[in-house]
Amino acid sequence: MTGDTDDPRGDPWLLTPGPLTTARETREAMLRDRGSRDEAFLEINTRVCASLATLATGGGDGENDYVCVPVQGSGTFAVEAALGTLIPVVPAAGKVLVLVNGAYGARMAEICTRLGRAVEVLENAEDEPSDVAALAARLEADSAITPTLTQVAAVHCETTSGILNPIEDIARVVAENNRRLLVDAMSSFGALPLDMRALPCEAIMASSNKCLEGVPGLGFVIVGEAALRATAGNAHSLCLDLEDQWRAMAKNGQWRFTPPVHVIAALDTAMAAHTAEGGVRGRGARYAENHRIMVEGMRGLGFETLLPDALQAPIIVTFHTPRDANFHFTAFYDHLRARGYVIYPGKLTKADSFRIGCIGQVGSEQMHGLIGAVEESLKEMNVTQCGP
Amino acid sequence: MTGDTDDPRGDPWLLTPGPLTTARETREAMLRDRGSRDEAFLEINTRVCASLATLATGGGDGENDYVCVPVQGSGTFAVEAALGTLIPVVPAAGKVLVLVNGAYGARMAEICTRLGRAVEVLENAEDEPSDVAALAARLEADSAITPTLTQVAAVHCETTSGILNPIEDIARVVAENNRRLLVDAMSSFGALPLDMRALPCEAIMASSNKCLEGVPGLGFVIVGEAALRATAGNAHSLCLDLEDQWRAMAKNGQWRFTPPVHVIAALDTAMAAHTAEGGVRGRGARYAENHRIMVEGMRGLGFETLLPDALQAPIIVTFHTPRDANFHFTAFYDHLRARGYVIYPGKLTKADSFRIGCIGQVGSEQMHGLIGAVEESLKEMNVTQCGP
Repeated sequence: MTGDTDDPRGDPWLLTPGPLTTARETREAMLRDRGSRDEAFLEINTRVCASLATLATGGGDGENDYVCVPVQGSGTFAVEAALGTLIPVVPAAGKVLVLVNGAYGARMAEICTRLGRAVEVLENAEDEPSDVAALAARLEADSAITPTLTQVAAVHCETTSGILNPIEDIARVVAENNRRLLVDAMSSFGALPLDMRALPCEAIMASSNKCLEGVPGLGFVIVGEAALRATAGNAHSLCLDLEDQWRAMAKNGQWRFTPPVHVIAALDTAMAAHTAEGGVRGRGARYAENHRIMVEGMRGLGFETLLPDALQAPIIVTFHTPRDANFHFTAFYDHLRARGYVIYPGKLTKADSFRIGCIGQVGSEQMHGLIGAVEESLKEMNVTQCGP
Repeated sequence: MTGDTDDPRGDPWLLTPGPLTTARETREAMLRDRGSRDEAFLEINTRVCASLATLATGGGDGENDYVCVPVQGSGTFAVEAALGTLIPVVPAAGKVLVLVNGAYGARMAEICTRLGRAVEVLENAEDEPSDVAALAARLEADSAITPTLTQVAAVHCETTSGILNPIEDIARVVAENNRRLLVDAMSSFGALPLDMRALPCEAIMASSNKCLEGVPGLGFVIVGEAALRATAGNAHSLCLDLEDQWRAMAKNGQWRFTPPVHVIAALDTAMAAHTAEGGVRGRGARYAENHRIMVEGMRGLGFETLLPDALQAPIIVTFHTPRDANFHFTAFYDHLRARGYVIYPGKLTKADSFRIGCIGQVGSEQMHGLIGAVEESLKEMNVTQCGP
């Protein structure tokens, strides 16, 4: 925890899947204007991209055959750019199998359909991890009859429920069957270990404003350089053409179209804080402690989690809605907000539930504070039965 | 001029086509974190969108049949979203005629080609305005034989050269021929008068970081609501689907995918400063004065502009490269940068030239300062012949 708990700023703590609370130094990096084609900015941009590629490949500093391609917009822009560029245009040349157990897997399938890419879905319930045995069976069956599946797309931490998918097992099965893996690591990147070389995987997609604790406005894709080179002309879009974006930037370090200069400067500062905290290990440890305090506190008040602990990522937690007739989510949200805690104002699961995040520039003080605020709110609402 | 000249920040003044120098208050608006689905942000977002729509339709505050659809990313993202959504997918249903006299018109044509939209180009040289008589002839010929052209796309101020295209005449001819007009107003919006109702036009595309003096990270399209409604399912992309983006936001005020929260808060502050400066009239007057001082000063040193004054917009000015053998652009750029002025580091025109912008949070003090810095730089470089 590098910083912000004593910041007398008066804004609530954001306990959501992101955008989340950032460090004051990160936001202060946005107080400077820089020319988007001037060396002062280009140095920052090059450093941020190199750091992200290093982080995705186990933190080594040797030669990197993986490159980071930043994309203006949100994480979904990076996901669409990756799918539209890396999945073959002609169905005969390739098809992607998307593992779905929540809204973000479903969104990848939706993007493929929208882009006219051949796509097949392997679905599990929102409270079940993606089924590795079923994946293996599907890939083997495909090999045996007509090999059409070239790629598999999976979500590392599906924030719909907060479930952690078994990405190493998925990667092993995909590799054993000679397919390539694309990973949406949006909400895990920077907090949970992920080594693209060891997995292995072809590409991962993430964004500035989750566990890296930057501000929103930038997505990025880390991808094998050789795989990317082979995709020239594939993309459905000029703006979201990952190969064109990369090739132009590799040439002179500049963006094709105006980059979010201030957002990138903030990410540069946030990346330095990430390193100072001990990288993925240090950040992950703080979030795990946040998660432990929050779940223990909520269970102490009678709440029940949607997921068993073994399936839960320390990123965001889904709680069943209390059965107490006095519990109304909107009132609960407003009570917590008035006490300085903003939780996710809605649900994505099919189950009747709500979610609280434990990532961002928050620590044990905020987690204990949240539990106190929940307890007070329940009293004011006359809620006593917090189980489902 | 609302503010920043006495800011002792040490950063150079950005005299480019953008991103440009912003007011300190605008950047300070980014010091706060807000939840992207929390009321504190949604209020700001709604206000910004309403202000932009009002600004595009002559500043009235009555009922507005035009809506503002913000798009994550740069201005080009908004252009691609508009073209991909508003131009019919099937060539038989419509074709766009793009007026090209620089890189940004050419980019619109490139986007249409990439998206598989039927496109035709009417080109003028980079130092000539788009030819209205040729446009009229082309539209009339098309009507007479097989009417295939449904839309015309034009650039208001083409920043490749800094030329101002005759947008009112273009709009009149397009309307007389019952076609619809799309305007890239990227570098003019907020500084030059543009009333979509009076023109008329179907859509305009612009961004946060030009004459509105916000920071980069947001594009937007102002479009007739009825026209937009008719385009459901047209877009080539999920992220850049303007109709889907609008419909979702109209429903509950929220973005489909994570918005650049800090960038939008900065734009809200920048829009208030725009109003305080007297809106389009006040902002345009300051830029016109900046432009006058800069061009007079440069001419006083012997430089010649690419364009005659009658064609020049008060946004960015292209100067012929001096014939003096001692003039090297990179050295000139570095000399000016060392003195606190960043100009555009490159050229887009075919003519041998360089460009200096006069927009952003700069005033007469910076323009006079620039001329002094140019004079000093020329002396140090031993450049005496500044004409082409």
